[in-house]
Amino acid sequence: MCKNGISKATLSRIPSYLELLRSLPEERYEHISATAIARKLSLGEVQVRKDLASISGAGKPKLGYVTTELIKNLENFLGGNNLAPAVLVGAGKLGKTLLDYDEFEKFGIRIAAAFDSNDKVISLNGKIEVRPISEFEEFCKSNGIQLGIITVGAGSAQTVCDKMVECGILGILNFAPCNLHVPDGVVIKNENLALSLAHLKNQINK
Amino acid sequence: MCKNGISKATLSRIPSYLELLRSLPEERYEHISATAIARKLSLGEVQVRKDLASISGAGKPKLGYVTTELIKNLENFLGGNNLAPAVLVGAGKLGKTLLDYDEFEKFGIRIAAAFDSNDKVISLNGKIEVRPISEFEEFCKSNGIQLGIITVGAGSAQTVCDKMVECGILGILNFAPCNLHVPDGVVIKNENLALSLAHLKNQINK
Repeated sequence: MCKNGISKATLSRIPSYLELLRSLPEERYEHISATAIARKLSLGEVQVRKDLASISGAGKPKLGYVTTELIKNLENFLGGNNLAPAVLVGAGKLGKTLLDYDEFEKFGIRIAAAFDSNDKVISLNGKIEVRPISEFEEFCKSNGIQLGIITVGAGSAQTVCDKMVECGILGILNFAPCNLHVPDGVVIKNENLALSLAHLKNQINK
Repeated sequence: MCKNGISKATLSRIPSYLELLRSLPEERYEHISATAIARKLSLGEVQVRKDLASISGAGKPKLGYVTTELIKNLENFLGGNNLAPAVLVGAGKLGKTLLDYDEFEKFGIRIAAAFDSNDKVISLNGKIEVRPISEFEEFCKSNGIQLGIITVGAGSAQTVCDKMVECGILGILNFAPCNLHVPDGVVIKNENLALSLAHLKNQINK
């Protein structure tokens, strides 16, 4: 099961498959079919079948999947019990919103620390600490951080990006409205919160 | 030029093309080629050529595009001077972050109003007012709103979604972590802020 071959759309549905499967009474659902899952989640049957096949192979004819096995495979796909630690730089309004966002864990990720040019350590929600950027390098290296989120302004985004690369980060999600340059071997993805709405606007104005 | 055929990736680059083209001294850039644009923005030449061709046809051999025409075509693609009005329901942390986000206008969209179950009218940044949800229907109908953003919790998202559909909204961007049902003719897109990072994580852990 090649992780890399999984589309973003398939990935987006995994947390809801897991939530459903974990909620089913074990005695009545030793097995479950893609059809039953599709019905319960109001999703297309073909889509569910493809999603599950790409992560857990094909179910048994007539029986479907062994529920506990399917749960395990989906959990393993998301990284099992080990949440991948990520760091965030830029604790402004957007940064704080992300720190408060509880969807990361559903995808096997936790924001381990946030950094800001502000020099004080601030505790947010009693969970994540916003630390001064001077502690960034040591934190990343001693925690083996591979994922970084940039929520600073466009003016300092490339500097932050370079620092992340230096510290061994391999995947960067950039919310700053600018293109950033990374060396080969590092994956960068620009995220623009306005883009999906702009795309929707085009779809309704055919 | 079929708007609907434009990919989200192409769409994401239009604001930066426009920003570059508008910044060029007119006397030196009566014409500009896709190659020159690609070089200036550090983008792939083939990509830029395809993007521009899908919106403004092919440039003239050797000369490229007439700069003013290209600007006009890109602007028209985004809706010209008429920003499409959108409404947002749910003025919590994420909602307020979006109200404060200045990328929408670059894509020809403005958030015209925000609504919350809280009954008071609040002025945010002196720009956008958060209004009580009781005013939602009248506002949408009298302003011909076609785009809606849902930033309420999963528990009330379907109710908000149904209200949007009732009020004539045709495109809905849903940030609540749940699947919503809409009738044929309405386009819904789920947005999950954790998904892109989860996808990145899979890409670096091949």
